[in-house]
Amino acid sequence: MPLPSFAPYDGARVLVTGGLGFIGSHLAQRLVELGADVSIIDSLIPEYGGNPYNIREIADRVHVNYSDMRDPWSIRYLVQGQDFIFNLAGQVSHIDSMQEPETDLDINCRSQLSLLEACRENNPDARIVFAASRQQYGRPQFVPVTEEHPLVPVDVNGINLVAGEHYHLLYDDVYGIRACSLRLTNTYGPHLLMKHDRQGFITTFIRLALEGKPIKVFGDGSQLRDFTYVSDAVDAFLAAGVTDAAFSHALNVGGQKPVSLLQVARLCQELAGAGGTTETVPWPPEREKIDIGSIYVDHAKLTELTGWEPRVGLREGLAETFAFYREHGKHYWS
Amino acid sequence: MPLPSFAPYDGARVLVTGGLGFIGSHLAQRLVELGADVSIIDSLIPEYGGNPYNIREIADRVHVNYSDMRDPWSIRYLVQGQDFIFNLAGQVSHIDSMQEPETDLDINCRSQLSLLEACRENNPDARIVFAASRQQYGRPQFVPVTEEHPLVPVDVNGINLVAGEHYHLLYDDVYGIRACSLRLTNTYGPHLLMKHDRQGFITTFIRLALEGKPIKVFGDGSQLRDFTYVSDAVDAFLAAGVTDAAFSHALNVGGQKPVSLLQVARLCQELAGAGGTTETVPWPPEREKIDIGSIYVDHAKLTELTGWEPRVGLREGLAETFAFYREHGKHYWS
Repeated sequence: MPLPSFAPYDGARVLVTGGLGFIGSHLAQRLVELGADVSIIDSLIPEYGGNPYNIREIADRVHVNYSDMRDPWSIRYLVQGQDFIFNLAGQVSHIDSMQEPETDLDINCRSQLSLLEACRENNPDARIVFAASRQQYGRPQFVPVTEEHPLVPVDVNGINLVAGEHYHLLYDDVYGIRACSLRLTNTYGPHLLMKHDRQGFITTFIRLALEGKPIKVFGDGSQLRDFTYVSDAVDAFLAAGVTDAAFSHALNVGGQKPVSLLQVARLCQELAGAGGTTETVPWPPEREKIDIGSIYVDHAKLTELTGWEPRVGLREGLAETFAFYREHGKHYWS
Repeated sequence: MPLPSFAPYDGARVLVTGGLGFIGSHLAQRLVELGADVSIIDSLIPEYGGNPYNIREIADRVHVNYSDMRDPWSIRYLVQGQDFIFNLAGQVSHIDSMQEPETDLDINCRSQLSLLEACRENNPDARIVFAASRQQYGRPQFVPVTEEHPLVPVDVNGINLVAGEHYHLLYDDVYGIRACSLRLTNTYGPHLLMKHDRQGFITTFIRLALEGKPIKVFGDGSQLRDFTYVSDAVDAFLAAGVTDAAFSHALNVGGQKPVSLLQVARLCQELAGAGGTTETVPWPPEREKIDIGSIYVDHAKLTELTGWEPRVGLREGLAETFAFYREHGKHYWS
């Protein structure tokens, strides 16, 4: 089944929260190319993923509103008249969520409620696609993980994402706002934040490989993960947004096939070509506590509803990623 | 299997949050009788269940600290040195949670994080028993509902309770704080708030029956529910608190056998003896949206771990409840 037509975005008013971030900026660019009237909300919190450079190619064709999703007033105005809302703003570091749980709560729960309340009051006809995470599943009881797998998160970030997702589905259920949630796995590609190590191992692997530094894989490195290249993730958001049957649902967005952490690390070193090595090291205790073993998701439901499939393989996607950072890296390392 | 010995409470320092409320006050009284050094935190928010009259018999034997769980500073001090923390403070109205979702978030999520952070920093040896709800399950996919049933809440209160419970289990898992969660079903008995209708149908039924007014049951009244008399709920908290094997778990607290809403309403009218009638009426739309059909829970896991069983039948418990309000009602109707 092919992807649905993206023609409904032509001329549509679309709001992308977190639109200066990694996935949000790619989504905003695609929407501009599709003819949408795109507005972006981003707070540019220094440690988070927002970066004005991410929209360098579309800066004069989007409306950027610099504001924090924790500000309930601006959001009330900004949701008005939007046909689609891609809600990607969030705190995404599991480590930060354990160190500052209340900040994570504010951003990932309170802000989501504010946005949904704003839509209920001022724009109940909006279609909302929320960016959730496979982190919500916690330690997998079976793989591949389907959407029916219990949600037993192993960090504060996962707990708050579960609440954020449930708010969206509740407002869909009770108030008739059309909302769905995409549970993203390890998404990678150009525009990933590179200035610190707290937003996931794939970021760290890519950065270390580019810097020619050793990659240390915890344990024996046999833990499996799946990976989504950012253009595939963007397709998933676009496809969900125009598919009536996708609303009211939480849907996994996965990759082509699971790969071990050791293989990923070695592939990064090979493709970066900067001479870095890969080694396995014992688990640091604070990381081991929140480790979840092998996990990868089943995205059959998303495929069934929208025709979406991951099209970019890991080698191809990583090669694109390294090429991007070789050319543009100075805007991400600062 | 009998209940465990409650001797560990003799001389122990025990904090009861929400201790002026319905269940909290009964728990505080039992703890005083068991020889514990009991402190209570309660905010006495007017629309909530706290009532100083609830501790009339133990007022000079407990320390009452009037503060709001949303105040992160007092809680940091108050958790220090406590051997047991029974964490019952919360916003419990499903209706209020839909009308003021952000207030519900603050009380049921932010405050729980504050308490857990306070324990992590100042009292990691405390044993914490959290009051959760079968509301967390949402619409039952099967009955009786076991703890493995998916958590798909159908209101903001349920979503936030899931997060509150998960925080407790996470802090147990990651930081070694001993915490468990009791998922309470419809708990009833003396000390229930009687001044409004927003804290559950059993409260409403009891009040209307005492006032000799008609009870209107939505739909055909065949929806099944289970009921826990408050002394049984107190036993569940006390049993969990002294049972090592109960920590790290979420455990259902159920009743003897499920009863239909129509039967409960008629039993209330019979026992109250004030001449009120029972009738069935069509669902009001805003209630029907968050209705979940028949639901009752399986508490086999709690029984297996602690020996707990519900001992008070519905007729006996309701008779006690009506007797209490006939004598003390003026302190609850104001």
